Amino acid sequence: MELADLKNQKIMLAVSGGLDSCTITHWLVEQGVEVVAYTADLGQPDEKNIEDVRDRMLASGASEMILEDLIDPICRVGLQLVQSQARYEGGYWNTTGIARHVTVAGMLPHMQERGIHIMGHGATGRGNDQVRFQLAAQMLSPQIEVYAPWRDPAFLASFGGRKEMIDYCQGHGLPITATHDKPFSTDANILGLTHEAGQLEDLTTPVALIEPGMGTFPQSAPDTAEVFTVRFAKGDPVSINGEAISPRQAIEQSNAIGGRHGIGIGLHAVENRFVGIKSRGVYEAPALELLGQCYEYLLQLVLDRRARKIFSPISAFISEQIYQGYWFDTATQASWKLIEHLNGLATGTISVSLYKGQVAFHAANDIPHSLYSEDTASMEDIGDFDHKDSEGFLGVLGVSARALNQAGQTTL
Amino acid sequence: MELADLKNQKIMLAVSGGLDSCTITHWLVEQGVEVVAYTADLGQPDEKNIEDVRDRMLASGASEMILEDLIDPICRVGLQLVQSQARYEGGYWNTTGIARHVTVAGMLPHMQERGIHIMGHGATGRGNDQVRFQLAAQMLSPQIEVYAPWRDPAFLASFGGRKEMIDYCQGHGLPITATHDKPFSTDANILGLTHEAGQLEDLTTPVALIEPGMGTFPQSAPDTAEVFTVRFAKGDPVSINGEAISPRQAIEQSNAIGGRHGIGIGLHAVENRFVGIKSRGVYEAPALELLGQCYEYLLQLVLDRRARKIFSPISAFISEQIYQGYWFDTATQASWKLIEHLNGLATGTISVSLYKGQVAFHAANDIPHSLYSEDTASMEDIGDFDHKDSEGFLGVLGVSARALNQAGQTTL
Amino acid sequence: MELADLKNQKIMLAVSGGLDSCTITHWLVEQGVEVVAYTADLGQPDEKNIEDVRDRMLASGASEMILEDLIDPICRVGLQLVQSQARYEGGYWNTTGIARHVTVAGMLPHMQERGIHIMGHGATGRGNDQVRFQLAAQMLSPQIEVYAPWRDPAFLASFGGRKEMIDYCQGHGLPITATHDKPFSTDANILGLTHEAGQLEDLTTPVALIEPGMGTFPQSAPDTAEVFTVRFAKGDPVSINGEAISPRQAIEQSNAIGGRHGIGIGLHAVENRFVGIKSRGVYEAPALELLGQCYEYLLQLVLDRRARKIFSPISAFISEQIYQGYWFDTATQASWKLIEHLNGLATGTISVSLYKGQVAFHAANDIPHSLYSEDTASMEDIGDFDHKDSEGFLGVLGVSARALNQAGQTTL
Amino acid sequence: MELADLKNQKIMLAVSGGLDSCTITHWLVEQGVEVVAYTADLGQPDEKNIEDVRDRMLASGASEMILEDLIDPICRVGLQLVQSQARYEGGYWNTTGIARHVTVAGMLPHMQERGIHIMGHGATGRGNDQVRFQLAAQMLSPQIEVYAPWRDPAFLASFGGRKEMIDYCQGHGLPITATHDKPFSTDANILGLTHEAGQLEDLTTPVALIEPGMGTFPQSAPDTAEVFTVRFAKGDPVSINGEAISPRQAIEQSNAIGGRHGIGIGLHAVENRFVGIKSRGVYEAPALELLGQCYEYLLQLVLDRRARKIFSPISAFISEQIYQGYWFDTATQASWKLIEHLNGLATGTISVSLYKGQVAFHAANDIPHSLYSEDTASMEDIGDFDHKDSEGFLGVLGVSARALNQAGQTTL
Repeated sequence: MELADLKNQKIMLAVSGGLDSCTITHWLVEQGVEVVAYTADLGQPDEKNIEDVRDRMLASGASEMILEDLIDPICRVGLQLVQSQARYEGGYWNTTGIARHVTVAGMLPHMQERGIHIMGHGATGRGNDQVRFQLAAQMLSPQIEVYAPWRDPAFLASFGGRKEMIDYCQGHGLPITATHDKPFSTDANILGLTHEAGQLEDLTTPVALIEPGMGTFPQSAPDTAEVFTVRFAKGDPVSINGEAISPRQAIEQSNAIGGRHGIGIGLHAVENRFVGIKSRGVYEAPALELLGQCYEYLLQLVLDRRARKIFSPISAFISEQIYQGYWFDTATQASWKLIEHLNGLATGTISVSLYKGQVAFHAANDIPHSLYSEDTASMEDIGDFDHKDSEGFLGVLGVSARALNQAGQTTL
Repeated sequence: MELADLKNQKIMLAVSGGLDSCTITHWLVEQGVEVVAYTADLGQPDEKNIEDVRDRMLASGASEMILEDLIDPICRVGLQLVQSQARYEGGYWNTTGIARHVTVAGMLPHMQERGIHIMGHGATGRGNDQVRFQLAAQMLSPQIEVYAPWRDPAFLASFGGRKEMIDYCQGHGLPITATHDKPFSTDANILGLTHEAGQLEDLTTPVALIEPGMGTFPQSAPDTAEVFTVRFAKGDPVSINGEAISPRQAIEQSNAIGGRHGIGIGLHAVENRFVGIKSRGVYEAPALELLGQCYEYLLQLVLDRRARKIFSPISAFISEQIYQGYWFDTATQASWKLIEHLNGLATGTISVSLYKGQVAFHAANDIPHSLYSEDTASMEDIGDFDHKDSEGFLGVLGVSARALNQAGQTTL
Repeated sequence: MELADLKNQKIMLAVSGGLDSCTITHWLVEQGVEVVAYTADLGQPDEKNIEDVRDRMLASGASEMILEDLIDPICRVGLQLVQSQARYEGGYWNTTGIARHVTVAGMLPHMQERGIHIMGHGATGRGNDQVRFQLAAQMLSPQIEVYAPWRDPAFLASFGGRKEMIDYCQGHGLPITATHDKPFSTDANILGLTHEAGQLEDLTTPVALIEPGMGTFPQSAPDTAEVFTVRFAKGDPVSINGEAISPRQAIEQSNAIGGRHGIGIGLHAVENRFVGIKSRGVYEAPALELLGQCYEYLLQLVLDRRARKIFSPISAFISEQIYQGYWFDTATQASWKLIEHLNGLATGTISVSLYKGQVAFHAANDIPHSLYSEDTASMEDIGDFDHKDSEGFLGVLGVSARALNQAGQTTL
Repeated sequence: MELADLKNQKIMLAVSGGLDSCTITHWLVEQGVEVVAYTADLGQPDEKNIEDVRDRMLASGASEMILEDLIDPICRVGLQLVQSQARYEGGYWNTTGIARHVTVAGMLPHMQERGIHIMGHGATGRGNDQVRFQLAAQMLSPQIEVYAPWRDPAFLASFGGRKEMIDYCQGHGLPITATHDKPFSTDANILGLTHEAGQLEDLTTPVALIEPGMGTFPQSAPDTAEVFTVRFAKGDPVSINGEAISPRQAIEQSNAIGGRHGIGIGLHAVENRFVGIKSRGVYEAPALELLGQCYEYLLQLVLDRRARKIFSPISAFISEQIYQGYWFDTATQASWKLIEHLNGLATGTISVSLYKGQVAFHAANDIPHSLYSEDTASMEDIGDFDHKDSEGFLGVLGVSARALNQAGQTTL
């Protein structure tokens, strides 16, 4: 969509309340577009007073400002990331990607209620977020059209970059606070914080140059280790250090405890964006990293080799689906049914020791579906039955090993 | 095979020179079996003077003792682990598993030379090592038979455990040094050290109870970070901190530097043994962890999304093949060809910062096949072409997103 | 288990009523073992009067004979094969493998009722069925022990092969009908019929030498094609040629119609047995092949690219699990949840044309979740919007294509 | 690119010589564009005299016509499809997809030679071919720009469909032969023929309505079966029915023999196009189907379970890469190295019987790397060693089966 398609239309614009939001809103209103601004409160750790967003957006010309608390939903979806171990390309927790889906699902009912069918967002034309906004929206509500000013020649002709926006806002007396170039761009919610762009685009900028927003770097973490104990029941964390918790509390407390020990702070990745471009990010996600490692220890105890073999590719697939904006599609829904079944086995208490960014296994207790048996595992206690079985086991395996050689497929 | 099958036969026995080795050798000789002992020098960090093994084995009755230096081969194979990122079940570096293959490949020519067709080993009947010894041996040389005393009723009738062996050796004046129960069992080579069994079988024993053999725990690592720089050329590390290195030096220096910072020390895993039993281990592998993380950073720069998608399952498959004793089979050979092609792209210099067990990305330089482009990645610099393309890109993707909804497959 | 472990015990023996069944039963009774015989009626197409089995087993000395009708359960499980497209190694329908699980699940309650904890079966020591019997039984009821006479030295000492069994039965006046060597061995149930062993072990024996038991070879099928129409509702076939059907009728009618056109008759495969041996079989499964191909046509209409991508490996995995005796384990259960979700989309009517072994697509109708849109697919009707989007779509894809070349990863 | 970008430029246009080719060429020349026409002779079975293309294109205004014989290259690449069993979404042979890569690789050197950097093609904006042209071209030669008239508003404004093109050509006296609407659109080369669009877009049009171009439907095939014997050496077919053959002869003869028996004629698929649209096609590929099935029989004999497990996903991946235009990229190159290693095992003679569309296994001979052993496979001949091993093998497997139940993961 281009500006011409919006004339005299009403649009719901996803805003963060920053420089872009004020600029885009005021500019659209100037062009005769009615703008309803929408902000999801996702527990952004970098947002001191989210209510200020309302004032700024109304001052920028929005006809209405919707500020919605989605902290509980995003915390619940955060636990789904933990349960599916959905790290992108096996590495970091893709907290930005999942948040876009939560925001879109939050916006749509408000749009339907108001008969608005154009969704606007401030994501750029080279990134992943534009993909997530659009696919999630059109998958849930196919009549939705998406307007992205950073892909609109009319908007781009007026605003080449940050400087023009600051000048524009100052010129119109808009209540922005930004006055100079930020060294990096950040995206944050209660699950995680992403740093990218700016100086980070230079691969010789060390991770250490960012300023953590959800905790501290290992270097400034305490000099003593802390034991952290979480109990999961059918996949959900139900207590931390012995105190019962809600999903939201699980995230909040794990962020606090993990963050202060440098857990999940400052992970760097150069990733493959959906549009085929490589980009670099530095990531923070203390709660997901901490709960995720504990959950992995639990899975090690309850999944057998075959269950693990099926879990791993599904986990990788789900992370890719989130990344690419397909959290709501058929393939994710079906995959989730598989994970959900395995969640049913994930009951138990895991203790870990936290020290300067490290999560070390401490103890596992009360795991009803555990396949680990101290007696069976023991190398020491050899009954009179077992060894004969192994002789036969290897005799059988040896048949095919020898056959490979005899068929000229292996050689010394 | 049982004792009865060995009478008046000559056997080559893989030995470490410890309590088991002395006991088994002397007992076999007593039963009329000729024992040629074989030890591979794999740079075991827990072995102070590997030449002592020779004396102990000859004193125990071995007719010949072969001590072979396989440090170079195991270092080269260690780099293959790095290149294929072959962590078992996605976690630790399976340094014990790969070492068995190296040892077997070392033994076989000596057996052929001497016309010996029975290989003996002291691995237990519940573990993975028996599988690796047997499959590797029979795949490379199908006429080989394997004798494993810990699966032989005759041997088991005499030796129920550690105590009986100590008594037996002391009774026969054999030169053992063990005098009391070890708390854990360890297996070590220059690539890594595995702790398992004993107190570790209890899941409430924290990782912190083991004593590292290849470095130090993060807690006792230096309080200042150290930058480590490695250059890879077509997959192989060719210099560390600017000094040219051989494969062996790459492992040795990375062990030294990584180990002193607690890198790769004390990873815990409960894993699925090939025989279907869960077991717990605590692992050390400083060099592989350090070089492995650096290599992963390099791969992030040179592999596109599709290459990554094909690399990941092959990596997982290779790690499973090593674990299960199939390093030499057709499927591994074929998989390696794929990895080898990707190695050809892995040229570049990676710097990381080491601090108390953490490897943080520091810088990447001189990467000829890098797909990362600062210009393309930039969110700031928006040309007049790009945004239109993205509009079309999303228009196309939106067609199928909407179709899912229209077909009743997704709902708000 | 060996004979010695059975003395004065009561065993439940899975029997087919043939030569092996009579021999094993009588021999066990002679050795002082009480034998309760169990036969599942699985709609075996090669069994004329399954009630005769009762007479033969009682005459052979069984203290009790349980004949249980499991035709409905095996038909329902047959539809699960169709829904998951679970062809072994991508090829044939593994009807023998799934039947073992059905039989074991049928036997166990009778064993519990009678306090019997030893299950006996006549499967050989080199095949897959022994694996399925044992794993299914011990997974559902871990105190079960399994006795397999073909792995028992005592039994083997008496019976080297078919001739000795015939002599033994004739000598004891047992009511067997077999009087000479069968050219092949067969296993059959309402889902399929497997031919193997005997002359088929020679790879120069053409498939044409077997005699079909569930239909006819294409050569002798009618010279005119027949249209077959099936409607699926949420994955289950609910009508054939317009008449409502039960799961059992779906299998029966598809067997009859498919079989007479040579559908699914005579598929040859050399497969990898669980024990690592290659073996050859010739397979018949008219209903599964016919319904399976129709279902695949339906899936092509309702699964998008991502759903297909997740369906395919899960389908392959399920077929492997059935083959290896793991139908009841966690990994299969979890995988089934994923399939079940996709079944929810599989509603529609598919018509195919049957001719001499070929199933040709004829028509698809009334498919509510279909993603196929004649309008969208059309190449002819080009709107003014679409082409611009494609230009952008390719512009975006082109960025990464060019980057590969610029990074020296591709060359002309 | 749009027309405006082409003014006074020289473009190389991939043409087939039909209605579109003449129209586009003449129209471009009218607009002041110099057109060099390029046709690859790929052995199109529907092209009677490919030299006529030259006359038609020059008459339409092309300044030069390049007609290049690429039959040998496409036959060699066809054998790569056979070796990797690269059927799209597990079904048909994607002969159109691979051909685009061959054509692009053929064109590029001619473009370089003439200093032309714009490639034109007549593929539509909703299909896959536009993707393959563009990605293959830009991957091999990144400075290439692509002009696709069916995505150009200027062209579309003049030509809404087939009728306008016929009128245009007749008005300008261009030598076209088309005079009325074709019922379907076809694309053909020596490897295969694709029918789509037109009446086929209606899912109630049976496959039987197309007219085969590479053979006959099973209904009109001979009433007697024919035995076909092919010998492969390291993956390549080297003789058919005992006569030595080149790659091209392998394709030609298999097309002739397979085609007359209805092999690979008329396969229907509804597939997921890269752009996310479902489309329907009916496919012919006699040689690939015939050689492909023979090769699969050979693979069944030489690949063990693990090699098969790694072959299958790589095969699926390669087919997807071809479909999406990524034949030349890093991931395909790396995957091919794996396949190439397995080709090294694929030596042997396979005979099949052909009858009315069916390929039935007849015999396998002289297969040096075969893992099939008649002796080992035999169920009859039971040595005194094997059965004991199986008892142990199952004893070991039973441990984990029981553990699942004891952990509450399975129930009766």
